[in-house]
Amino acid sequence: MKRTRLVFSGSGGQGVITAAIILAEAAVIYEDMNAIQSQSYGAAARGGATKSDVIISDSDIYFPEVVQPNILVCLTQESYNKFSPIIRPGGLLITDLRFVETFKKVDANQVELPMYDTIMEKIGKPIVFNICMLGALLGQTALLKPDSIMNVLRTRIPEDFIEMNQTALELGMELGGRE
Amino acid sequence: MKRTRLVFSGSGGQGVITAAIILAEAAVIYEDMNAIQSQSYGAAARGGATKSDVIISDSDIYFPEVVQPNILVCLTQESYNKFSPIIRPGGLLITDLRFVETFKKVDANQVELPMYDTIMEKIGKPIVFNICMLGALLGQTALLKPDSIMNVLRTRIPEDFIEMNQTALELGMELGGRE
Repeated sequence: MKRTRLVFSGSGGQGVITAAIILAEAAVIYEDMNAIQSQSYGAAARGGATKSDVIISDSDIYFPEVVQPNILVCLTQESYNKFSPIIRPGGLLITDLRFVETFKKVDANQVELPMYDTIMEKIGKPIVFNICMLGALLGQTALLKPDSIMNVLRTRIPEDFIEMNQTALELGMELGGRE
Repeated sequence: MKRTRLVFSGSGGQGVITAAIILAEAAVIYEDMNAIQSQSYGAAARGGATKSDVIISDSDIYFPEVVQPNILVCLTQESYNKFSPIIRPGGLLITDLRFVETFKKVDANQVELPMYDTIMEKIGKPIVFNICMLGALLGQTALLKPDSIMNVLRTRIPEDFIEMNQTALELGMELGGRE
């Protein structure tokens, strides 16, 4: 059984929930996996922090909540401060270099990437920051094929925006280390 | 303790996941409740059916999955056929009159509303079908204030589209029975 537990965190408007939904749909529709995607809102949501969970598995999933993620992405300082302690030992922690200053040593592979700055420099549209983040994730982990993400995007966004999203995904993959 | 368990179901593209996220955010940010919103994807997703769960509560929520919803919305025949048996006895079942032909007697308040036809006739844009559905839900249940939904929409969509969404919400509320 192969199971990956992910948490994407950031602030409202960075698109972390949308990224989680796209990832879950890509896994299920194009790679024949099972997936659960959820967000729990409480006091944190009122403070502006957003956290979205995804579990992807090749078998049935019974408990939908992610307690200890294998993969944690933090796109704001606040989300990093709050969620970095929950990462599973030996997991992968991806942070954005502009928004997060890491200061704690956690038992994880810590990867700091200039996702936001790269998107702003090469594309100039913050709306695809979340797609760049998905690219960085795929570059680091090869969790899914990039084509699976693009296939979902083609069903969700207008034709005119596909190329920009494709570029954002590829920039993310390069940052994440996949050629 | 007051707790409402909702399931929105339909096909991809009808916006049921987005509607669920908007409802959950409205409850938390503007009405000081707790909420969990999730979707579980499996074989059903591959067949095109979409199901999204929301739990709204005035206290903490420990188990995030909705097994028996108090409120079930079905926007396609397939989703109605599949999910109508899970409704909680005495609950509320809302279906769209164009897309769903009801045939089973369930122990619930069954409400069939011409949401899609009303939107197409008065606005002509299927993209706000899901907002009309939220309006119908609020018209039937007074679960949240319409202003809470509008406040979330104002943070998510461009200014130019606010009026159309407001109209869709109001049309839904009228269909749902609130003046």
